[in-house]
Amino acid sequence: MKHYLQFSDLDASEYAYLFERAALIKRKFKSYEKHHTLSDRTLALIFEKASTRTRVSFEAGMYQMGGSVVHLTTGDSQLGRAEPIEDSAKVISRMVDLVMIRTFEQTKIESFAAHSRVPVINGLTNEFHPCQILADIFTYIEHRGSITGKTVAWVGDGNNMANSWLQASEILGFKVHVSTPRGYEIDQSIAGLRSSNSYEVFKDPMQACAGADLVTTDVWTSMGFEAENDARRKAFADWRVDADMMRAAHKDALFMHCLPAHRGEEVDADVIDGPQSVVWDEAENRMHAQKALMEYLLLGRQA
Amino acid sequence: MKHYLQFSDLDASEYAYLFERAALIKRKFKSYEKHHTLSDRTLALIFEKASTRTRVSFEAGMYQMGGSVVHLTTGDSQLGRAEPIEDSAKVISRMVDLVMIRTFEQTKIESFAAHSRVPVINGLTNEFHPCQILADIFTYIEHRGSITGKTVAWVGDGNNMANSWLQASEILGFKVHVSTPRGYEIDQSIAGLRSSNSYEVFKDPMQACAGADLVTTDVWTSMGFEAENDARRKAFADWRVDADMMRAAHKDALFMHCLPAHRGEEVDADVIDGPQSVVWDEAENRMHAQKALMEYLLLGRQA
Amino acid sequence: MKHYLQFSDLDASEYAYLFERAALIKRKFKSYEKHHTLSDRTLALIFEKASTRTRVSFEAGMYQMGGSVVHLTTGDSQLGRAEPIEDSAKVISRMVDLVMIRTFEQTKIESFAAHSRVPVINGLTNEFHPCQILADIFTYIEHRGSITGKTVAWVGDGNNMANSWLQASEILGFKVHVSTPRGYEIDQSIAGLRSSNSYEVFKDPMQACAGADLVTTDVWTSMGFEAENDARRKAFADWRVDADMMRAAHKDALFMHCLPAHRGEEVDADVIDGPQSVVWDEAENRMHAQKALMEYLLLGRQA
Repeated sequence: MKHYLQFSDLDASEYAYLFERAALIKRKFKSYEKHHTLSDRTLALIFEKASTRTRVSFEAGMYQMGGSVVHLTTGDSQLGRAEPIEDSAKVISRMVDLVMIRTFEQTKIESFAAHSRVPVINGLTNEFHPCQILADIFTYIEHRGSITGKTVAWVGDGNNMANSWLQASEILGFKVHVSTPRGYEIDQSIAGLRSSNSYEVFKDPMQACAGADLVTTDVWTSMGFEAENDARRKAFADWRVDADMMRAAHKDALFMHCLPAHRGEEVDADVIDGPQSVVWDEAENRMHAQKALMEYLLLGRQA
Repeated sequence: MKHYLQFSDLDASEYAYLFERAALIKRKFKSYEKHHTLSDRTLALIFEKASTRTRVSFEAGMYQMGGSVVHLTTGDSQLGRAEPIEDSAKVISRMVDLVMIRTFEQTKIESFAAHSRVPVINGLTNEFHPCQILADIFTYIEHRGSITGKTVAWVGDGNNMANSWLQASEILGFKVHVSTPRGYEIDQSIAGLRSSNSYEVFKDPMQACAGADLVTTDVWTSMGFEAENDARRKAFADWRVDADMMRAAHKDALFMHCLPAHRGEEVDADVIDGPQSVVWDEAENRMHAQKALMEYLLLGRQA
Repeated sequence: MKHYLQFSDLDASEYAYLFERAALIKRKFKSYEKHHTLSDRTLALIFEKASTRTRVSFEAGMYQMGGSVVHLTTGDSQLGRAEPIEDSAKVISRMVDLVMIRTFEQTKIESFAAHSRVPVINGLTNEFHPCQILADIFTYIEHRGSITGKTVAWVGDGNNMANSWLQASEILGFKVHVSTPRGYEIDQSIAGLRSSNSYEVFKDPMQACAGADLVTTDVWTSMGFEAENDARRKAFADWRVDADMMRAAHKDALFMHCLPAHRGEEVDADVIDGPQSVVWDEAENRMHAQKALMEYLLLGRQA
């Protein structure tokens, strides 16, 4: 049994399969062709942080595969409050076939997985957001072909998205240019890379974008860090993705953002709403990429 | 692509089709006959105000048609809070086939619809409640036949229900007698009628009820106006639908109420629990009328 | 039409059927065999208290039978707040096929059932928890065969679980040894037994466990009694199920707990995590036992 707790839980060959499978699943969806490979399977969604995109993409995705969903929030459940998380894992994994968790500490989802009888998917933790990167790379491939050998510029917070991009670069053979404000640097030990060959750190975000095939960023203040809002606004002021940065990038460069976006903060409106932006495809592709992932975790490779 | 944001979004011929279709769908439901025309389709329900009836009627209705539902509340989503509503519309409408929204301002649902790739249904706004009127007229037809040429007495608040009745009267050719307390009058400009031929305003609710084929009312204090509760109790004291009003109406007159009802406030118990009341059929018919509506918005007329 | 509001709502012959049926349904689930006897049926879940186990077991169970679920909480509905519970019962039971309610007073669920057109299931009240006892006895039978003639030791609070065990003992012909702290005694009038033949009260929990075939307990402070937490900790100190109590029981005795458990309070870790504990089977069996129950209430005995 496989879990998907971080991007490094799968290898390059598995990703190659997933990207192909997601493309097939998406084509079938677009032509209203049934794809009920998860009929009679139930997915539990456990949210300890608010969510629209993750919620809708997993839930609608599961329905499209013929399955069903139980949606739990810490508001109406007792997860990690009234009982040890190990007990919740044992109980819930007796009743459903698959569990997705959005929580705070990566250790929490790891404890759950260690006591679960069924696969567990990371729907965002403080440390990682592998499903988003899975969707982003699928979106890149859809628009531009293989990401191997390409360059991704990460502009902004050295957060869970950045960590997952770092893991992906090593597995799939591309380069990440990282530029973060001082005090918000990436911590390579979190990503647990074998080497530092696949990424490069830049003080100047413009330099990070130079020649990049994909420019991507995230909100300045991720969920859970709202108290730091004012300090972050100041620190991140020069890390707004703007038309100049996009001009510095490769002329075919794409812009991505995992949303929700704050125009005029981490990205200018003319970038996110401009011709290089693929943010709406990226959002839709969460659903298709996750369908391929769920199917793979439950059934393995399909002929 | 059609949205259903107000009653005037459909014409008389479309309503004739919907009422017939709802009757067929209801008959099949009552005989446990499958009607899975929306199999593999997903409906997103977005609630910014609490709801039981709207929630259960849309959700159970969708299941009965073979579809599925994602239920979002502003408590666990980010709609209109962390991102512009236009962005939410673009993202959500990439992942589901249909969206129902219960919110405050009509402008909000209009913004959403303007950026949605899929049909949007108004599940109640400050200005309109078209699904309720759709169900009410379906219920009238079920009990008494065509509503054309008949008279509906609206007793009470000049609210979203009243506005939707006004729109319906002009499209379907019946008359509305409106009687509201001073300060709670209807505002014809909201309904946007072509003329004032289809309705008449009465100071005295007894006169509004005289000869009416249907008497209907709503709670004195709709959701969102709770602060005005005391002032409204005083102002509305003479607008309680009672046995006298029902006697003033046509002897075959029906009583309707969209519920929840406050007996002894806007309606006396012997009216709502009496023989002329069809409030339970009316509640059930929300479900069947909405099934016909959802099917029509997604698939058009069915043979 | 039958409701399931307390354990005494069904008789011994019906329980014999349910336990056999639950075993069949569980075998089919374990071999991924479809069992869609409730296809096109909708279950409403109404929660006025938080829940994980009850939520997941009913929801996943319904999906496994081909049905669907509408999940309502008092947070996003108006049950018993904005309208009389009788009205809610009339409306909701027009739209769904089955209703499960977790609430406080037993009278509340009885009012609902009295005005419901469809079967109502008690998912826990202050007075009773019949679905849990149904699952517990099914689990006992699975591990040890018939419970008739056996002895169940109830150690701890004279609560809704204890009341349901008392009802079960009279119907199914086993004995309950009850030991509660002073001030937390059972009240036989709640269970409404025909006699006091099926149970015995012990001051000393060790004596209650002597020779028992099943030892079971519950948290010291059930939901809704949190204010009494400190007083209860003191009063219940000697009612912790420990290795000594399990040694006093029959050598083949099982340990059960409806969860969530507080190790070191009502039970020691070496008991709940030890070889006699069947708490994870017990949790899973909520789902299978309830599937058999829902099917029986909707369709009667199946050949």
